[in-house]
This record gives sequence, C-alpha cells and structure tokens, in this order.
Amino acid sequence: MQRIAIIGIGMIGGSFAAALRARAHPAVIAAFSPGGDAARARELGLVDEVYPDAASAVRGADWVVLAAPVPALPALFREIRPVLGAATRITDCGSTKASVVQAARAELGEAFDRFVAGHPLAGSERSGPDAANPDLFRGKRWLLCPVSSAQQAHCADLRALLAPTGAVVSEIDPREHDRILAEVSHWPHAVAFALGAAIARGDLADQAIEFSAGGLRDTSRIAASSPELWAGILLDNLEPVLESGERFQAELDGLLRALRERDRPALIESLSLASRWRKRLG
Amino acid sequence: MQRIAIIGIGMIGGSFAAALRARAHPAVIAAFSPGGDAARARELGLVDEVYPDAASAVRGADWVVLAAPVPALPALFREIRPVLGAATRITDCGSTKASVVQAARAELGEAFDRFVAGHPLAGSERSGPDAANPDLFRGKRWLLCPVSSAQQAHCADLRALLAPTGAVVSEIDPREHDRILAEVSHWPHAVAFALGAAIARGDLADQAIEFSAGGLRDTSRIAASSPELWAGILLDNLEPVLESGERFQAELDGLLRALRERDRPALIESLSLASRWRKRLG
Repeated sequence: MQRIAIIGIGMIGGSFAAALRARAHPAVIAAFSPGGDAARARELGLVDEVYPDAASAVRGADWVVLAAPVPALPALFREIRPVLGAATRITDCGSTKASVVQAARAELGEAFDRFVAGHPLAGSERSGPDAANPDLFRGKRWLLCPVSSAQQAHCADLRALLAPTGAVVSEIDPREHDRILAEVSHWPHAVAFALGAAIARGDLADQAIEFSAGGLRDTSRIAASSPELWAGILLDNLEPVLESGERFQAELDGLLRALRERDRPALIESLSLASRWRKRLG
Repeated sequence: MQRIAIIGIGMIGGSFAAALRARAHPAVIAAFSPGGDAARARELGLVDEVYPDAASAVRGADWVVLAAPVPALPALFREIRPVLGAATRITDCGSTKASVVQAARAELGEAFDRFVAGHPLAGSERSGPDAANPDLFRGKRWLLCPVSSAQQAHCADLRALLAPTGAVVSEIDPREHDRILAEVSHWPHAVAFALGAAIARGDLADQAIEFSAGGLRDTSRIAASSPELWAGILLDNLEPVLESGERFQAELDGLLRALRERDRPALIESLSLASRWRKRLG
C-alpha cells in the first residue's frame, strides 16, 4: 500500500486528498498542517493519519506532496530531508516555480533528483480543509517543472499519482511558468486587491456594497483571497509581477489621460483592444 | 390598451419588453431601433410594431421608454418632443443620470414634468435583442431620479410599469447616483478594460488565453463589453469617474511601490483592506 504524505491540508492539499478518496485510491494518507487543519481533515475523512510535524508525517512515505504556501517551502525542504527514504518522490503545489526549484536544489541534497515542482491552476478565494472539493482540479491544468533528466524520469509516476484529480497535466520551464502566472493570476490578483482597497478607502465604501451589481462582484471577487498568501506570492515572483504591473500601470495612465483630455479615439483604441482580447478568452 | 414605445431594442430594451411579455402585460409595444434590432425583436415576438424612426414609434404612446445609450439621448429628446401626447410619460435607462436630466430639461419643454430619469442596475457583456432575458432585472435595483414634485407624481405609475420586471425600484438624487455608479460600475469597467488591454499589448497575450484560470476570467469579464458604449459612459460621467480613477491610481502606485521596496507590511495593509471590504460584499 502506497503512503502519501500531504504537508499542508488547506483547500489545495485537502482537495487533492478528497480526489484520491473519491476515486477510492488505496493509499494511506499521512498529513501535517499547522494549526487544526490536519485534525479537521481527518474528521472530514480526507486523511488517515495526522502528525505533529512535517518530518513525522513524511517518514516512510512513497510520495510527499507539499501543499504549503511558497514562503514556507524552504524550511519544509530542510525539515523533511533527513527523513526522506531513498526512493521517496517529492512534489509541491506552490504558485511560483523558479524560487521553489532554487530552494529545493539548495535544501534537498541528492533527493533533489526525485523532486518535481508542480502547480495546479485551480483554487478559489476560499481556504482551509472545509473548502476541499474532489473536483477542484477536474479539467484544470496541473503544470510540472522538471529541470533535469533525473527529475523528468519521475514525471510519468507523478502523472499517475495526479490522475484521480482529473487535471490536465503538462510540463513547462519554471521561468516561463512564472512569467505566465504573473500575467494570468498574480497581477490580476493585485489589480482586484487595488480595486477593493481603493473602494474601501473612499467615502462610498458602504454605498458600493449596497449598489454593487455583477460587474464589480466579478472584477473584485479574488480580492477576498488571503492577504498573507498573496503578499507572499507577489513578493516571491517579484520581477515578472513588476513587469506585468508596470505594463498595466502604463495602460491605466494612458486611459486616465485619454479621459482627462476627452480623447475619445484614444479611449476607444484601448477599450477595443481589451474587448477583442477578452472575447478571444471566451 | 396602453401603448408603450421602446426606443432602442438592445439587451436592456429587449429584456424590458420580454419581461412585459412574460407577465402577459396587455400593452401594445411599439419600437424603433437603429439598424436591424427592432425587426429582429419583432421576429423574436418581443414587440408588436416596428417604426422607421423614433418619432413615429412614439406617436400616440402612453409611455416612452428610451433604452438607448446616453450619448444618443439629447437628440432623441429633441426628436420625440413634437409628437409627445399631453399625458405621455417618458423614462430612460441610461447609465448616467445628471447629464440625462440636464439634456431632458433642455430638450423636452413642458414634457420635462412628465419625465423621470431611470437606470436599471443590470446588464451583461452581451448586447442586442437576442440577449434579451425576461428575468434580467429580477431582484436587481432600478433607480429612479425624479428632480421635481411634478416628476415625483409620476413615480407610482412608473413603478407599476416596471413591476413585471421584478426589479427593486428606489429613488435617488442624480448626482449621488452618478458618484455611486462611477464607483461600482463605470470605474470597475475601466479597470477591467485596462487589464485586458495591458495583457493584449504584452508578449504573453496568447499564453494568457491558454493558461488563464477563473481569477483572470472573472476579473476581466466585463472588458468584453462594447467599447463604444463604455467610452460614451466614461466620458459622460467624467468627473465622478476621474475621482474614482484617481483614488484607484494612487492605490495602485502605492502597491507597486510596496512591491519594489519589498515592503511587506505596506502590502499586507492594502491587501487586507481590500479583502475585508470584499468579504463584506459577500
């Protein structure tokens, strides 16, 4: 019977466990999570065994799935390294990949050859094991970032491990991953947070709640996400995020200039570019 | 039998007609719309009679519902004034209200007493009579902006006319309306457009489509809206839009500064403010 250690049983780790359960995967699932999340996950039937620290949960595991936020990963790599078996494979679910690969290389020693960085492109503004959903990953992308032929050799087994989630697994270079994720996820989160904060700081914060329609709800939805988690992601993926952010800032400054100068053609040009692109997104 | 003239049979005018039909309202519905929208609305069974111009459609009407974009309203007021009956009541569905009230005052003559500016807070990025939906307004706000006791006297009848839509009707001052709408709708549209345009202008425009997840889809959804319509709304409600926009720009500049300086506490402060506000929105 395979042993799978899941470190971090929030929405992502919990949903991975829930997917294994839903497909009656025969593994024993060991878990550690700071706070009460692992105990709650056992109550919910998501995991079999709960441990007081990551190293205890990882001991004897065939697979280690780190579903902790990116800033927590370097210390976790350090903590689990001494208890990894000679054949234990490791993956993570962090939102950025270049810094995670770098930390794994620095901390995992020879086990780095059995590490494959990963990132499921799924989530919501919810968190914790009660947000676990066995179908969270179904039809969504799960990106893997092997950076050596040794790591590449473990991808087939990792794909088999992920199969019960129904995710569409593909491989990508970690730096390319980080640039694309800055553009499609990290920076859009920053925009939603800035919109929410600007409204909250204004004198119409209460009326905005009373009169909001679908447009504001959608545009600001991801601003309800965890500030700590997202501050960590934005700072970790700083260079690509600033690249996306500065392009947005230039577009915004141009849009405000066009408004102040009542320059309708410039305004239409910017709005049309956006509208055409968004219609392609479908 | 009441005669209702609907001028502009796009998604809004078409959905109003559809709501009357769905509740078997006994009115005769006359329509004019530029292009083929009115003919299409008759094909769809939304309206009874189609006219080649607004004045012909309005002749003999008990109610005139102008569901045309704000920039088209001054000329429409001018065109219909000579054919308005002595008891004809008029309302509009424009996204801004101060400029519409001003134009109505300038153009409608004594019929201004029988005009009540209105605005249903509903819509979507779709347009045209094929997007008509009898339940579009159900449970949504429909704001009325009477600015005199003469106009006020028509509000009860207007509420009765709107009853089949299922909208929640309330009254508000037009300038207050415009400030709130800039904050909850007009400026969020500008943000979504700026996000879409910035992505479209970048070198990751194609990858952003391939790798986008729910966050970007939601945040940018309203950027698929009509550029012409929204350029008109933003320019018409310029002062409140700039007020909202400049507050957002300051927040964004602060967020980018916090990122560049790796100032985690400043970042957390802004993100937390946004997250708390968005959670209140629910």
